[in-house]
Amino acid sequence: MPLPVSRDDIRAAHARIRPYIRRTPVLSVPDGAFGHDGPVSLKLEFLQHAGTFKPRGAFNALLTAEIPPAGVAAASGGNHGVAVAYAARKLGVPARIFVPEISSPAKVEAIRRFGAEVVIGGQRYADALVACDVYVAATGALSIHAYDALPTIQGQGTVALEWEEDGPGLDTVLVAVGGGGLVAGIASYWAGRGIKVVGVEPEGSRALHASLEAGRAVDVTVESIAADSLGARNTGPLVYAIAREAVDHVALVTDAAIRDAQRTLWRDYRIAAEPGGAAALGALLGGAYRARSGERVGVLLCGANVELSKLAGAL
Amino acid sequence: MPLPVSRDDIRAAHARIRPYIRRTPVLSVPDGAFGHDGPVSLKLEFLQHAGTFKPRGAFNALLTAEIPPAGVAAASGGNHGVAVAYAARKLGVPARIFVPEISSPAKVEAIRRFGAEVVIGGQRYADALVACDVYVAATGALSIHAYDALPTIQGQGTVALEWEEDGPGLDTVLVAVGGGGLVAGIASYWAGRGIKVVGVEPEGSRALHASLEAGRAVDVTVESIAADSLGARNTGPLVYAIAREAVDHVALVTDAAIRDAQRTLWRDYRIAAEPGGAAALGALLGGAYRARSGERVGVLLCGANVELSKLAGAL
Repeated sequence: MPLPVSRDDIRAAHARIRPYIRRTPVLSVPDGAFGHDGPVSLKLEFLQHAGTFKPRGAFNALLTAEIPPAGVAAASGGNHGVAVAYAARKLGVPARIFVPEISSPAKVEAIRRFGAEVVIGGQRYADALVACDVYVAATGALSIHAYDALPTIQGQGTVALEWEEDGPGLDTVLVAVGGGGLVAGIASYWAGRGIKVVGVEPEGSRALHASLEAGRAVDVTVESIAADSLGARNTGPLVYAIAREAVDHVALVTDAAIRDAQRTLWRDYRIAAEPGGAAALGALLGGAYRARSGERVGVLLCGANVELSKLAGAL
Repeated sequence: MPLPVSRDDIRAAHARIRPYIRRTPVLSVPDGAFGHDGPVSLKLEFLQHAGTFKPRGAFNALLTAEIPPAGVAAASGGNHGVAVAYAARKLGVPARIFVPEISSPAKVEAIRRFGAEVVIGGQRYADALVACDVYVAATGALSIHAYDALPTIQGQGTVALEWEEDGPGLDTVLVAVGGGGLVAGIASYWAGRGIKVVGVEPEGSRALHASLEAGRAVDVTVESIAADSLGARNTGPLVYAIAREAVDHVALVTDAAIRDAQRTLWRDYRIAAEPGGAAALGALLGGAYRARSGERVGVLLCGANVELSKLAGAL
């Protein structure tokens, strides 16, 4: 059975969003770094607009839909909200972002800076989602899902297309998983091509790992230093269906390994990654993913929306 | 009269140091960024080992000299000291770095982390230089100059070689100037090739600008937020001689423009640059260098050895 997202879908998405996104560069690191006896390719996706990969999916969603007069809406106090606000402003579309009260002031400020209306309410993400759904039902605004939707997954998959062209010769790629839109897109692009796509989740936030074990998309509880970006409670059925077919497995990293990856990135590369953006490297550094000697490993550095003062305190 | 450093010298240096340095990537930014109506090419040299371009010159110096039993020595409480310590450790050579008392604890700690002996003494850089000279005279150690020496300039010039290959089609490059080894190397590589090399100095730390005005290398006083990396009081005669022939001119940036460039790099690119590493962008952003419409401008981001807590406080 073919996957719901094809390589051609992702090529089409890339042609569509290319004028709006940054083609983020790849840094090739020779053997011996990160305790790995083989070359490592770092895709520097944290250099993307709005600080994470998420504008790829947001632009693809906006550019493939008919935008209603009410504009777009999203529920997210985090990177998805920032990305939708950014994409909507660039395309001249009104946006309303529903965020829970616990959202970081820096991310809420970024959403506002990009000109979106912010509606703060409720304790949890689920509350913001309900408020968003009510608004969408009342106004006809277009809801942009953070991960479990075809246009989103197609957009995120464009990371793999660029990586293949700019840093060819990969055996394995390590990709952090929150809701799983990114890993689903990347796995769709490389399905059947001999490149192993490994998801990486925090031990305390393992929605995809638990779903693959259960044989269906299931809810998990979330507790991790990366929860603000990787803390999805459920991947959703579409991500699950793709991951089951095309993701090799999910490696689980400890919070300590994530912190160690952040520390290493700053100390040795002057890269200020957020916990979720460093989690994939944490799998290599901490041994949650054990590469064989000579294996050409790609590590996706997918986000850097961290407050500098917080990062300074944590490292 | 040929320049003292040729394109072939720089090619040879690149072949020599390539196994030891990172080939730092280039980020292409389309028209409209930084207030410039044309494309911008960012060379991400802050991703280099030890956080700045300086290992290029340090490795080239170590690899072209006979290393005496006493090893190498350098006077620098800053990026040069860190780079020499790094290169010496990689090559298994003992290193002693003389630093003034005002040096930042973070940089001194980095020098120690790379296994070099640190000798702290004196109020100013000049005091450390005297102590270094005394040590070199007594022990026969090899002194590695931070900028005004042929192997150093040849090594720094390799930035231009990579940039030409990885991000071709530049009209102009903006390069921060401290002692001027970097701009001298880059200008030597592109001399007579129709690429305009523009030096960028803080208004309060203009050793090269003052020397070009005076017609010889002259001393200046130094006061700038970028003084810890760009605060040389004199470029030295070799840098001056190359710059006079091959640097188009020196643009002077205010400290406010440097800070604005740091703020922009963090807000829009998640790049945590030190003041000296952001100065070249400050010239474009603040108008100290006025590019014409459509001009293809390269901006070298040359360093990120900043303490995160300090950066957080400054932005």
